[in-house]
Amino acid sequence: MSLIIQKYGGTSVGDPDRIKNVARRVFATQQGGNKVVVIVSAMSGETDSLIKRAKEIHPEPNEREMDVLLATGEQTTIALLAMALHALGAKAVSLTGAQAGIVTDGIHTKAKIANITPKRVHELLNEGNIVIIAGFQGITPEGHITTLGRGGSDLSAIAIAAAIKADVCQIYTDVDGVYTADPHIVPNARKLSEISYDEMLELAALGSKVMQARSVEFAKKFGVVFEVRSSFNDNLGTIVKEETTKMEDVVIRGVAVDKNQAKVTIAGVPDKPGIAARVFRMVADAHINIDVIVQNVSAKGSTDISFTAPANEAVKAAKVLQPLIKEIGAHEVTSTEGIAKLSVVGIGMRSHPGIAAKMFETLANKGVNIDMISTSEIKISVIIKLADADKAASAIHDAFGLAK
Amino acid sequence: MSLIIQKYGGTSVGDPDRIKNVARRVFATQQGGNKVVVIVSAMSGETDSLIKRAKEIHPEPNEREMDVLLATGEQTTIALLAMALHALGAKAVSLTGAQAGIVTDGIHTKAKIANITPKRVHELLNEGNIVIIAGFQGITPEGHITTLGRGGSDLSAIAIAAAIKADVCQIYTDVDGVYTADPHIVPNARKLSEISYDEMLELAALGSKVMQARSVEFAKKFGVVFEVRSSFNDNLGTIVKEETTKMEDVVIRGVAVDKNQAKVTIAGVPDKPGIAARVFRMVADAHINIDVIVQNVSAKGSTDISFTAPANEAVKAAKVLQPLIKEIGAHEVTSTEGIAKLSVVGIGMRSHPGIAAKMFETLANKGVNIDMISTSEIKISVIIKLADADKAASAIHDAFGLAK
Repeated sequence: MSLIIQKYGGTSVGDPDRIKNVARRVFATQQGGNKVVVIVSAMSGETDSLIKRAKEIHPEPNEREMDVLLATGEQTTIALLAMALHALGAKAVSLTGAQAGIVTDGIHTKAKIANITPKRVHELLNEGNIVIIAGFQGITPEGHITTLGRGGSDLSAIAIAAAIKADVCQIYTDVDGVYTADPHIVPNARKLSEISYDEMLELAALGSKVMQARSVEFAKKFGVVFEVRSSFNDNLGTIVKEETTKMEDVVIRGVAVDKNQAKVTIAGVPDKPGIAARVFRMVADAHINIDVIVQNVSAKGSTDISFTAPANEAVKAAKVLQPLIKEIGAHEVTSTEGIAKLSVVGIGMRSHPGIAAKMFETLANKGVNIDMISTSEIKISVIIKLADADKAASAIHDAFGLAK
Repeated sequence: MSLIIQKYGGTSVGDPDRIKNVARRVFATQQGGNKVVVIVSAMSGETDSLIKRAKEIHPEPNEREMDVLLATGEQTTIALLAMALHALGAKAVSLTGAQAGIVTDGIHTKAKIANITPKRVHELLNEGNIVIIAGFQGITPEGHITTLGRGGSDLSAIAIAAAIKADVCQIYTDVDGVYTADPHIVPNARKLSEISYDEMLELAALGSKVMQARSVEFAKKFGVVFEVRSSFNDNLGTIVKEETTKMEDVVIRGVAVDKNQAKVTIAGVPDKPGIAARVFRMVADAHINIDVIVQNVSAKGSTDISFTAPANEAVKAAKVLQPLIKEIGAHEVTSTEGIAKLSVVGIGMRSHPGIAAKMFETLANKGVNIDMISTSEIKISVIIKLADADKAASAIHDAFGLAK
């Protein structure tokens, strides 16, 4: 008898029929001779509708109260899923985050899980129940309701899998698994049967919408092997786990494209210590998330600093930096839209030289100009024209033989 | 500094504007130099919409899970009201039933309050907060979410008022208070400035929609004085409290009409012990609530038994009793619609003889025939034709001088 965790996201429980569909899957898993714990999100649209209600009352709602409000979303789903399981003749009991023993810190709307006391979960499982737990939420030691922020339900699932020592953790979503590239951009993209935590992390950070980086980090930290798969079919998904030697044989695991990028350049920056620090402190204080940073090697005592940010924040960043230009004696600050970030990710590149060269040659052959380059141990990213992004992604995907 | 409890029902918090209106009232009460605890219901329509969702999943939803689902209704309101108070610059914190320490038994969907531990409420009040508590809900000692059933939010308010020893308990609703009669039926009906628990109980049981009997009983048991008043204006309401000697000077407090009645008669019942018990056991087992029971004095060894029930249940009652007719040797069972119950209520009738006579004379003068009569210590009810109900109520209202 295996102990299986299944997590279903908002689209998988988006209406009564989908909830019934999830109930059938869950019950079949238990009937197959397993203990089953289910983690669910709020029905799709529910969280947005609650946020809208709150904004009608207060433009910037208090975060503690926002958590009280948002927690009703998952609480609704757990009750409805329990009822759907009862309709099939299954034994099932729902638990809120608090009832499941999910204790968090007190940082409302983005709380961190501090510990999980799964005593009640084990008791209910031992009585033959399917246990349904509200994802995304917890409670502080003082008894305040908290939520975990974006991707919080995945995090709940992985944390509970670690706490109850589950044999299998399945993250059900509206995609079949992790692909070598976005199939909308690269038609011959292929589903990966497995991927390492680190590769998944790079892909998550690169704008892959499958999962938030923090859940993958948590899984890596506690060694939770999980599978990303679809709730709408029975296809096997992608297993995410610690890297194996065999994995290194594959040089590149996947190609990612982020089209939501814009670039900010400060030209003619005097080459003095502390300037970059001041620039990025100002940007950080304006709550703008920056991504790639490139500073050219200084010549003639001045340099250019460029960075990318989400497209809708670049203009704001340039405006925020304007007062600094005169102060530090730089020439100007400009923002550029119409760019994209193209990345290749693979733990194999650590042991296979020449990956960057091959990537750049492929782009050159297609006439794609490279604007910025940024690399990590297992990733190479380039900033190119947005108009070139799709053809560049397909070319790279082919060049590294990912479609096979 | 007084400690004031205010309870707002579903229509009072039915949309964002009404929630803001409640926030202004609550804040003004605190600004007037008081400590304020607010109990709220789910927004009107919310509970019905949750029940509808559940029925789409399961025709008879499990009651534990129904409570998990329904409890989200009040949880939504407390968060939104806290936000509305913050928008006014007030300090306010929301608490679910569980967080407020409302412990109940485990009878889901109609739990009874076992005890309240208001430690947290007092702490938050002492920190200068307006404390907003979800009505209608609690938690069992084992940590299961429960709801209190119909009228549960009123009950929460009165129980919390008792637990925290509030100086004032105000039940805000969509009516101005308790009237001498339904103003839709008796145009010159007058709002009562005060009424005793017992009179209010008779009125609640008689179909007055102001409040459920169980909340009044609870208030009587714990001596909680409360005021019923409107959230849509600033009029004084009706104070409900233990009777005073002065109250007895008023012979009749009010007139109530219940138009949702039908009558079932079993004719020719043999006059033997145990027959009535068998009749009403069968009706009870069919979950039909009976109201007035009248059995004529036996003559010639047989008698008629009549009772009234809600209009939509009388036909069912007659059908349920059909098999019994032959068995006990009665003649027949019939059901009659088109009747109404007219009642006068007043603690003063204990010390003023002749009330029944005056009531019956008034009806006779108006040509209204009396079908059944039932009395208690402080109430006289008659069953009359539905068509006569309005004119009879007005005549009685005038006869006892209630409009003054």
